[in-house]
Amino acid sequence: MMNVDIQNNQARITVSFIENGGVTSAKGFKASGVHAGFRANPDRKDLALVVADEPCATAAVFTQNVFCAAPVRFSKHQLEASSGNLGYGCMRVVVINSGNANAATGTHGLEVAQAEVEIVGDALGCPSGEVLVASTGVIGVELPLRPFEEGIAPAVEALSEEGGVDAAHGIMTTDTYPKQCAARCEFELTDGVTHTFTVGGMAKGSGMIMPNMATMIAVITTDAPIADIDLHSALTQATSVSFNKVTVDSDTSTNDTCILMASGAASSSGLTQQDFVKGSLAYGAFVQALSSVCIKLARDMAKDGEGATKLVTVDVIGAKNEADADLAARAVANSPLVKTAIAGRDANWGRIAAALGKSGAVFSQENVDIDIMGMPVCKKGLTQEFDEDEALRKFEDPEIKIFVDLGEGEASTTVWTCDLTHDYISINADYRS
Amino acid sequence: MMNVDIQNNQARITVSFIENGGVTSAKGFKASGVHAGFRANPDRKDLALVVADEPCATAAVFTQNVFCAAPVRFSKHQLEASSGNLGYGCMRVVVINSGNANAATGTHGLEVAQAEVEIVGDALGCPSGEVLVASTGVIGVELPLRPFEEGIAPAVEALSEEGGVDAAHGIMTTDTYPKQCAARCEFELTDGVTHTFTVGGMAKGSGMIMPNMATMIAVITTDAPIADIDLHSALTQATSVSFNKVTVDSDTSTNDTCILMASGAASSSGLTQQDFVKGSLAYGAFVQALSSVCIKLARDMAKDGEGATKLVTVDVIGAKNEADADLAARAVANSPLVKTAIAGRDANWGRIAAALGKSGAVFSQENVDIDIMGMPVCKKGLTQEFDEDEALRKFEDPEIKIFVDLGEGEASTTVWTCDLTHDYISINADYRS
Repeated sequence: MMNVDIQNNQARITVSFIENGGVTSAKGFKASGVHAGFRANPDRKDLALVVADEPCATAAVFTQNVFCAAPVRFSKHQLEASSGNLGYGCMRVVVINSGNANAATGTHGLEVAQAEVEIVGDALGCPSGEVLVASTGVIGVELPLRPFEEGIAPAVEALSEEGGVDAAHGIMTTDTYPKQCAARCEFELTDGVTHTFTVGGMAKGSGMIMPNMATMIAVITTDAPIADIDLHSALTQATSVSFNKVTVDSDTSTNDTCILMASGAASSSGLTQQDFVKGSLAYGAFVQALSSVCIKLARDMAKDGEGATKLVTVDVIGAKNEADADLAARAVANSPLVKTAIAGRDANWGRIAAALGKSGAVFSQENVDIDIMGMPVCKKGLTQEFDEDEALRKFEDPEIKIFVDLGEGEASTTVWTCDLTHDYISINADYRS
Repeated sequence: MMNVDIQNNQARITVSFIENGGVTSAKGFKASGVHAGFRANPDRKDLALVVADEPCATAAVFTQNVFCAAPVRFSKHQLEASSGNLGYGCMRVVVINSGNANAATGTHGLEVAQAEVEIVGDALGCPSGEVLVASTGVIGVELPLRPFEEGIAPAVEALSEEGGVDAAHGIMTTDTYPKQCAARCEFELTDGVTHTFTVGGMAKGSGMIMPNMATMIAVITTDAPIADIDLHSALTQATSVSFNKVTVDSDTSTNDTCILMASGAASSSGLTQQDFVKGSLAYGAFVQALSSVCIKLARDMAKDGEGATKLVTVDVIGAKNEADADLAARAVANSPLVKTAIAGRDANWGRIAAALGKSGAVFSQENVDIDIMGMPVCKKGLTQEFDEDEALRKFEDPEIKIFVDLGEGEASTTVWTCDLTHDYISINADYRS
């Protein structure tokens, strides 16, 4: 259990991670994960359900890939039909299959998605218009309906308030472990009363991970009472500092989807949607809790990037503006040469310099400082002596930290990635077989 | 021997490749390559000289990396001192060392470059202001002067008109074979007389290869009589369709340099710099011959990319404009998932679609056609049945061809890359050791 205490000038906010928490930690949600037959291996769960007790405020962000998949187009349409807006609405169910992305499947793919929500709605006794869909897996292969038909009954049967971990298993592709996380937030408003709510979620990586949004699917739930439009603002804010700062291989998926549902069931909250309106103290507390959960899931995605042995954190400060900070950090995080050097436990900072130099960010090499694992390796653009043995020892750490000061301004950012290893090649040269 | 016959509407131009041709195929140049001691291994040449018989018109293009290395800054300064322009001037010598990039070495690196040209000028009896320098190898380590002091006499001694191949060896880093090429151009002007000239060159890759310019160093010579300013235009034109269309790993080096020298010594030419002025028929013939040589060297660089087993050609047509064609082709060529799929002999076109979709190029997925090795795998955005056995057979070819029609407009481009294999990881996780 890890606590984050934030004392801002308006309210005392405490965010505490919940051990083994996940998408069902917030009140008002059940989940399940079963093997339905999208995959050949009967030991692998491939169908996940997240179901709210009642229809609730829901927001989502999606891939910006032009070749976006049918479930992305379809879920946007569902939200639009509900609210008139592509990013939020009132929903009750998220259904996710792994093993097949339903991408590059044309109008037929949309028809499959429509049939899918009808099957799910029928099984749950809810309108098909309250079901969002997501798919992940191979591209360009028609998504079969039979596994939905056969798997939905056991999936509904298995729904429970402890089902988050099964759902997290159900959405995995090349992930080596399920990714879930939840946090409880306590905050005190000016009335002196302490209010609490919970945010929890699950996510999957682990290749084709590149902002903006990646081959990632995440479902996050909360029992805080928040209106859909405010939920969308909060989600956009939280993803901008979490999922959109992760890159495994610079490839952006056709299927990226992040869905956030708010049940309003936090019993001790005593607050209403009006209290959580954008700009309020409660909204601020929510964004902080949501960001904490998203950052934890995002770091997990990077750490479990395909073939990864190390989580790599790239901190850039001193950039002229935020766009430049982002360009610089991403260039380092995406550089195959930087990532292979880390795999080789090599503090080869020249490759970091080269990546910065091609990033497009404005700076002068004479002003650049680079640290690796706290060791200054470049000062004002010049190489610094460092102890190679100490460097090798520091590379034993599971998280490699690269710090860059561009010496140009005040903007900063953090981007997460992983090293590039033989296993990445093995996984991706052999994915379909 | 391969011939390229180009019958344009103004002149008949024949470009014939010269077997085993290289940087000394054009008249008026000598070259050499020796082991001088930048590398520990005495069997590896690490110092190359290309020397014109007389000072001659010279043009160059350099890396755009902000962290550009001392030799790049220094050579630009040499050209500027000669002509007032950073891109051309009158030069006699190019000296290149491998094993050390003299990058991120600050003002000391510039002092080393200055001392280097003085050593070389003294040994050749020419002004130091007529010497251009290039360096390639590890970044952030001071370039020692001693190997220049000790290696220059043997290098000058070894200069010969057959020395091109030794020079091509001297500039190699992780290249597995020397890259050189030359072509003879015959063309007929309106006077009915056939004129000839030769263009030849050498280049090195093979990692950190990404336009615009890459960790590449190329020296090209010609005996055509061309003024420095026209030479620079021709070089810019030729690199835009050759070296700037190669990507191995999306990393751009600190040291990229491409130098073109024109001796004017083509005895049978009977033409002057006035005949080769930009826009003339002779200039057009020169650009075609130069482009042929540059494309051959560029393809060799991609084919010999670090760890590569396949040359990959990405042709994009039907783009809205040239910028979009380039974005789309580069996104495919830079995608680690596309490149690992090719390493795995897997016609996984969904990854090509995903790369196109994130490229930023404007198109609709409903209009996209994709062929791999001539097999239609995607028509109008939809998957096409293809024979997997036939696909496997076609993947035996040393060159894998990906063809994309975006169905949006008339612009097109070609980009070259290679597959991404275990050997890339081995080479780059272990480069300094």
